[in-house]
Amino acid sequence: MAGMHGPGDRYVVGVDFGTLSGRALVVRVGDGAELGTAVHEYGHGVIESALPDGTPLPPDWALQDPEDYRNVLRHAVPAAVAAAGIDPARVIGIATDFTACTVLPTLADGTPLCEVPELRSRPHAWVKLWKHHAAQPHADRINALAHERREPWIQRYGGKISAEWQFAKGLQLLDEDPEIYRRAARFVEAADWIVWQLCGVETRNICTAGYKGIRQDGRYPSPEFLAALDPGFAGFVGKLDGPLLPLGARAGALTAQAAAWTGLREGIAVAAGNVDAHVTAASAQALAPGHLVAIMGTSTCHVVNGTELAEVPGMCGVVEGGLSPGAWGYEAGQSGVGDIFGWFVDHAAPAGVDSHERLCELAAAQPVGAHGLIALDWWNGNRSLLVNHDLSGLILGLTLATRPADVYRALLESTAYGTRMIIEAFVEAGVPIAELVVAGGLTANPLLMQIYSDVTNRPLSVIGSAQGPALGSAIHAAVAAEAYPDIHAASAAMGRVDRDAYRPDPGRARAYDALYAEYRALHDHFGRGGNDVMSRLRAIRNAAAEPSAAPADTPLEVVA
Amino acid sequence: MAGMHGPGDRYVVGVDFGTLSGRALVVRVGDGAELGTAVHEYGHGVIESALPDGTPLPPDWALQDPEDYRNVLRHAVPAAVAAAGIDPARVIGIATDFTACTVLPTLADGTPLCEVPELRSRPHAWVKLWKHHAAQPHADRINALAHERREPWIQRYGGKISAEWQFAKGLQLLDEDPEIYRRAARFVEAADWIVWQLCGVETRNICTAGYKGIRQDGRYPSPEFLAALDPGFAGFVGKLDGPLLPLGARAGALTAQAAAWTGLREGIAVAAGNVDAHVTAASAQALAPGHLVAIMGTSTCHVVNGTELAEVPGMCGVVEGGLSPGAWGYEAGQSGVGDIFGWFVDHAAPAGVDSHERLCELAAAQPVGAHGLIALDWWNGNRSLLVNHDLSGLILGLTLATRPADVYRALLESTAYGTRMIIEAFVEAGVPIAELVVAGGLTANPLLMQIYSDVTNRPLSVIGSAQGPALGSAIHAAVAAEAYPDIHAASAAMGRVDRDAYRPDPGRARAYDALYAEYRALHDHFGRGGNDVMSRLRAIRNAAAEPSAAPADTPLEVVA
Repeated sequence: MAGMHGPGDRYVVGVDFGTLSGRALVVRVGDGAELGTAVHEYGHGVIESALPDGTPLPPDWALQDPEDYRNVLRHAVPAAVAAAGIDPARVIGIATDFTACTVLPTLADGTPLCEVPELRSRPHAWVKLWKHHAAQPHADRINALAHERREPWIQRYGGKISAEWQFAKGLQLLDEDPEIYRRAARFVEAADWIVWQLCGVETRNICTAGYKGIRQDGRYPSPEFLAALDPGFAGFVGKLDGPLLPLGARAGALTAQAAAWTGLREGIAVAAGNVDAHVTAASAQALAPGHLVAIMGTSTCHVVNGTELAEVPGMCGVVEGGLSPGAWGYEAGQSGVGDIFGWFVDHAAPAGVDSHERLCELAAAQPVGAHGLIALDWWNGNRSLLVNHDLSGLILGLTLATRPADVYRALLESTAYGTRMIIEAFVEAGVPIAELVVAGGLTANPLLMQIYSDVTNRPLSVIGSAQGPALGSAIHAAVAAEAYPDIHAASAAMGRVDRDAYRPDPGRARAYDALYAEYRALHDHFGRGGNDVMSRLRAIRNAAAEPSAAPADTPLEVVA
Repeated sequence: MAGMHGPGDRYVVGVDFGTLSGRALVVRVGDGAELGTAVHEYGHGVIESALPDGTPLPPDWALQDPEDYRNVLRHAVPAAVAAAGIDPARVIGIATDFTACTVLPTLADGTPLCEVPELRSRPHAWVKLWKHHAAQPHADRINALAHERREPWIQRYGGKISAEWQFAKGLQLLDEDPEIYRRAARFVEAADWIVWQLCGVETRNICTAGYKGIRQDGRYPSPEFLAALDPGFAGFVGKLDGPLLPLGARAGALTAQAAAWTGLREGIAVAAGNVDAHVTAASAQALAPGHLVAIMGTSTCHVVNGTELAEVPGMCGVVEGGLSPGAWGYEAGQSGVGDIFGWFVDHAAPAGVDSHERLCELAAAQPVGAHGLIALDWWNGNRSLLVNHDLSGLILGLTLATRPADVYRALLESTAYGTRMIIEAFVEAGVPIAELVVAGGLTANPLLMQIYSDVTNRPLSVIGSAQGPALGSAIHAAVAAEAYPDIHAASAAMGRVDRDAYRPDPGRARAYDALYAEYRALHDHFGRGGNDVMSRLRAIRNAAAEPSAAPADTPLEVVA
């Protein structure tokens, strides 16, 4: 942690709620210096196979416990302030960012339904984490109807909304547990729920409302559209709607209770909610149009501002003011990146080479193409451009001579090809990409960074902070506390980036052009209807894995 | 080892030359009882990366040292006789079987060129093992010209001869080392060379001449055809031709030298050469038409007798008398089977689950289709039906939930699908398959056996000997020694099979029908021109791996 404390220094706290833990970061308002940080792991982590009381969950579910989020406020914030060695009275604002779409049903006062004792064993009462993928059938219904009715908003989402988003998750809730649906007075992004916990006021932020909630041109989907999906769904927007805030806005003042949790002063500014990826654009000084930020962790999220509205096929979404007021914010994503590399180390690497370090060392020594492999990076489905969570991973080119580092390198490369697909889709649709900026934990892997630079044939700028989202939240807190006039000014003063940290090698870039062409052909074949084998295998798998399935012949029933 | 010795008992010795070792088996003539066996590992194993003197080898090469074969005669035969506890004077014949096409250039007296001191560091002077796959371009030339000239023999090989065979390997020799080609007075299958070592007489057997040497209807390819490939190749058949013997024939008498090596009596019968897979049909009592024997080891070879001549697309070959006199012998093959499972355990299974036993235990507990995976079993190319060694392996359906036993089971299944493709091709071409008999080391894996039965929806009969090839050779030795009138009679008396040892489960068989349909679609897409990505990746890999390659951009040159 850098910097000396000055007598007039003021501070802000950014809190980043990730998939497995939350991190608080204390930042100096004047220059963005990071002075102290602390992490609190969620006690329940990701709830995938059974609720804490043992209630089993079907495949593709992923839940969380909202109390774990409050515990981040209770533990990580005071610990970060202590680590910074500052007077908590000099903290002038707090802001948060969250995974999204992570969403929960609550009572009218914000109480999560899973905290209502008689509902605690109902899976649908819990927080649905972003990677809850069991609402794919519901997303499919929404997409089909949207195209049938030519709803204008569907093109703002590349032609497909994701199974991860609010409307798909809400429709699944209605379908599968109508009582919980009825009792959910509010259906709220965790990004907004945590702000509600901090300042006691329910607000919604323009970012999640747009990217995850299908709010476009000031409107959500119409009651007619929703009723056509299911008559009971007609009033769904009533559970979502509320005071909508632009990014960087002040949502309210820290309550006495939240002040007690965090050790901060009651009444300081609490900023509008935000999303981990989107808020990182501020910390990476990448809010100017065309500066695409790839936040690379277990998954990758790409965000970029544009001056014009364009409809990009297969993109996650475009939202006016979605990254910062006054621009069109574009989002794209890759649903599995670091997760895939981790899967390989945990489940596919033999003893002796089962570490990222060793695999990188071996893989780095190879010329481009020497492993003879191409992989499709769909271990966790495809978010952009195909928006299909039933897609799955592929490795092609395996021989008896294939070694673990060969496959590992092919997996690194496959995610770089996925990023290149997204960049090219933006450019082809009229969203120029001037710079590629990377952030997130995977920036610590120089081999991966060089591969991304070579595959995209672009220099790579790297964020100058290891805590991009928390720093971005802190920047938003400074704006909400009126220390800066807007996010751009705060980003310029408090953000950090290492420009052109990696540069492409022309020979390797040419070699990758040939391999990328192969990736692209496979991507289109398996992703765009040439062969829907992945969806069929998923259906067979799910049927075979059903606890109620007859042991052997059930799969046939699904397929026939 | 079973059986009591009787005073009048006579014995035969079968010697099976495999990929890594040779095995001798002492068998009682009267009932086929296996009395003693011994194995000798080849000192040089498979020579793949460099000659013993360090001379490096290009990718896809696989050589052997013929002295390793002689050492099997010196060590394994006496050890087997000792283990049997019999009087070697009561051994009346010896026969051998070999991997094929395993072929070597020799002087006129049979001396291998790699044993000529000044040629010892020349890779082309050594034995080319069956899995030497560097002659694919030469096979491609032969196939293209055969189709252009409408050579009638090409349809006897399913429309394609393999890169593994005599003419492809011979053409590579001429192309790449014309001096060795010139000095090779003889170009001889190891199956025939070892017989030459035993009885001092050069012979050729009808089996390898037909399946590996393109001898059909009494003729090899014409000098005009060969000259059109390369004027220098016009006389190639002169290096191959020689006294041709039917299977089970007596090639000659054991020489004094070979008697000294083996400890057997000088002058006993030495049978004509044979191939490990083909000779197993005799030990599995599967010489009647329609009884398909799958010899499952590192690779699988399928042999079956038919009453009629049929041209089966993609089949390895059909040879009159190729399995036994008086029938058309059909051969097909899968170039990687046990090799693939071994690759997985060695290079893709994490600590704790890196054994076949543990992986089978975990995999056996799964319902069909629960892993959501399909693999193409082409880690070592595809011998039938596609006859393309540039094809490579594929795994599709991978997710973050995929575990090692899932992939392992998918690999087992992929080889079963490959077998089903071959069975269906036979049936569709008019070669009825009445029974599936399995032999070889993989019969020890009950999960694999049950999967084969379920996937093919056929009962599986299992050979009653763990040493199918060596027992088959012993049966041929008994015929050569005139203890039986023909191979059929000897097989009936000395062979063993456990009929219908595994039976298909109707539910699982139906479930596999759906997965097999997916396998077949992928097989045809990647194997029949839908997407030739595997061949292109192979070319890129080979160029990148060339020691002389410029480090990064060489792959592009190949593709562009």
